[in-house]
Amino acid sequence: MAVGSGVIEQLKPIAGVRLATGQAGVKYHSRDDVVLIEVSPNAEVACVFTQNQFCAAPVTIAKQHSGDTASRYLLINTGNANAGTGQQGLEDALTCCGAVADLLKVSTKAVLPFSTGVIGEELPVDKITAALPGLIDGLSANGWLRAASGIMTTDTRPKAVSKTVVINGYAVTVTGIAKGAGMIKPNMATLLAYIATDAKLDKTLLQSVLARCTDQSFNRITIDGDTSTNDACVLIASGHSGVVIDEDVAGYQQFVDCLSEVFIELAQGLVRDGEGASKFVTVQVNGGADSEECLKVAYTIAESPLVKTALFASDPNWGRLLAAIGRAGVSDLDVDGVTVHIGDVLIAENGSRATSYTEEAGQRAMNKEDITLVIDLGRGSKSETVWTSDLSYDYVKINAEYRS
Amino acid sequence: MAVGSGVIEQLKPIAGVRLATGQAGVKYHSRDDVVLIEVSPNAEVACVFTQNQFCAAPVTIAKQHSGDTASRYLLINTGNANAGTGQQGLEDALTCCGAVADLLKVSTKAVLPFSTGVIGEELPVDKITAALPGLIDGLSANGWLRAASGIMTTDTRPKAVSKTVVINGYAVTVTGIAKGAGMIKPNMATLLAYIATDAKLDKTLLQSVLARCTDQSFNRITIDGDTSTNDACVLIASGHSGVVIDEDVAGYQQFVDCLSEVFIELAQGLVRDGEGASKFVTVQVNGGADSEECLKVAYTIAESPLVKTALFASDPNWGRLLAAIGRAGVSDLDVDGVTVHIGDVLIAENGSRATSYTEEAGQRAMNKEDITLVIDLGRGSKSETVWTSDLSYDYVKINAEYRS
Repeated sequence: MAVGSGVIEQLKPIAGVRLATGQAGVKYHSRDDVVLIEVSPNAEVACVFTQNQFCAAPVTIAKQHSGDTASRYLLINTGNANAGTGQQGLEDALTCCGAVADLLKVSTKAVLPFSTGVIGEELPVDKITAALPGLIDGLSANGWLRAASGIMTTDTRPKAVSKTVVINGYAVTVTGIAKGAGMIKPNMATLLAYIATDAKLDKTLLQSVLARCTDQSFNRITIDGDTSTNDACVLIASGHSGVVIDEDVAGYQQFVDCLSEVFIELAQGLVRDGEGASKFVTVQVNGGADSEECLKVAYTIAESPLVKTALFASDPNWGRLLAAIGRAGVSDLDVDGVTVHIGDVLIAENGSRATSYTEEAGQRAMNKEDITLVIDLGRGSKSETVWTSDLSYDYVKINAEYRS
Repeated sequence: MAVGSGVIEQLKPIAGVRLATGQAGVKYHSRDDVVLIEVSPNAEVACVFTQNQFCAAPVTIAKQHSGDTASRYLLINTGNANAGTGQQGLEDALTCCGAVADLLKVSTKAVLPFSTGVIGEELPVDKITAALPGLIDGLSANGWLRAASGIMTTDTRPKAVSKTVVINGYAVTVTGIAKGAGMIKPNMATLLAYIATDAKLDKTLLQSVLARCTDQSFNRITIDGDTSTNDACVLIASGHSGVVIDEDVAGYQQFVDCLSEVFIELAQGLVRDGEGASKFVTVQVNGGADSEECLKVAYTIAESPLVKTALFASDPNWGRLLAAIGRAGVSDLDVDGVTVHIGDVLIAENGSRATSYTEEAGQRAMNKEDITLVIDLGRGSKSETVWTSDLSYDYVKINAEYRS
């Protein structure tokens, strides 16, 4: 299952970035499972990684490498997360980086490794290194769409977005791909996302823009509340458009808005293709005293198994929404001041069902594939939004049958 | 589904406590759905209630009444939670209490109301009051077992326990019943539990013993992480055994241990009959620097949909356990110092799979119905234990089909 058509519009290449995708047979045969991304020598690359303390070996290595040296190559494999693999895992990730470095005459530290898939299995290094010559031959500026498929695990379809913004008369392009369908409650990054622009930004600004965009996109989605060991999000600025972005230029906000749209579309794309998802749900909490309490309420709703099963059943079970709000840990909440809408239907106010509410109206609102739950806490002016999916038989099936 | 036989051993009556169960037709016909419990005039009654801020009308009324007046009658209905019902709900709960009071010539405040079932529907007061004369006629000291069934909602079987302890040569008996199969992550109490003893305790001590026993039993279970709007736990001390319990008597600890056993067996009984449960899982976290971090890790594991679906599949997917530990928010966790056992099988150490581990041994440990996950954080001497169930197709089915 997945929500919406998932149609990907024409992806625009980013000058200075080439991609190749191939089959290494890491876990499955006859399936793309390795991707190599090449970044031109003067590009800047910024990364954010999972906050999970059991982070995977490639995360540890990629953090070290990206701190030390200008990154030139990103090597991604699916089918094996190289997580929970101890010292051997670190060595395996380094061996893969070294193999890329030898073939392409760069420093090992110029290569960043990324893995996703089953946790706790030894990485089949030989299979991955054997696939490298073919990947290098295949590097192409038009490789984005196949790469979007190549990084999938339980995803049912690729997630990719391109956008162009004109800044001071010059076009700047942003193209990104992402994957992730389960173990999704990113904390500073999502499973795997690679976004590139041909704008020119210095590394400090690129890192801060990445953090800001990630925080409002991948860090606002939850599929199952589980934060992965392997989350990583990379933002590349190749500079090949010649358009320099800094915080003082007139087009800065336009650029950030464009980038932000790409991040949010990719993040929402992950939720629409969440494991077993049949609904795409926006949880918007308004009227909070601060952002923290808005997020508490939003995540409590978005992660409640009872709310999620009601969404799956298209059941306007607003009682479960009230129960979730009531246990979210907002101190001194005046429940009589809380209102709840499903779409534009007022469901609850004054601590009970709205007098205008009818079961038919609630049912109509819940039957949609895209559902917005709007909660007003009635105690301030802060708002926060998170996106989530429902909890279906297929979520259980996928996770009871797939060793991930 | 439910875990284990669920056999209930002979329930012992508690002198000074009588119970009656009947059919009011609140939601379903031909099903017990109302229970009346009578407590003798000199008994002490202590209560704890849900911390959910959207607490149900009967919770609000029962809190007021139990604070004001000696409680004589507990009126319980299933099929309707009288939650999210605003002012009307409060009036309905009071009307039911008043009807009991009129028939039995006590003050309205001597009656405590309890409801469980669907949230947000108006309580059918007339049906409940019409059933009262029959209930009053049926009051019996031997009514515990039928009452245990009478308070069930999605429970598949009654939960009831009796124990006797000899204190200074005199027998003291404790008998209790409990219900709850979903929306279970109690916070200060569970859905509904009624425990009575013929020991004599003053109200202050009874309340403190109740808080202590609840904290180590009902407050250590989670089925779906959802805290109900209606949780309530009542402890009755009739005093009819003539055995006075205070903190200075020799048998005090024996009494508390006996009571505690009843609470824990009832709490575990709820988990064994959790919605869709096919596994009973003990999550024991040792080696913590403090209790709080042990509980964080225990609940993160117990509420992870990925861990719960792996348990359902009997899949020794220790990677998901490591991922859950890593995201539990324990600061400065040295992942190399963490060990994980499933039963007596060492699964992970030094941040990866234990060298002694075999998939066969892991599979054997996971195939059992009763599974203990033991995590040692390797950073202190504190321990905490929580109990949970797995996440199955049936959990989704029950909650997608049942408007609760």
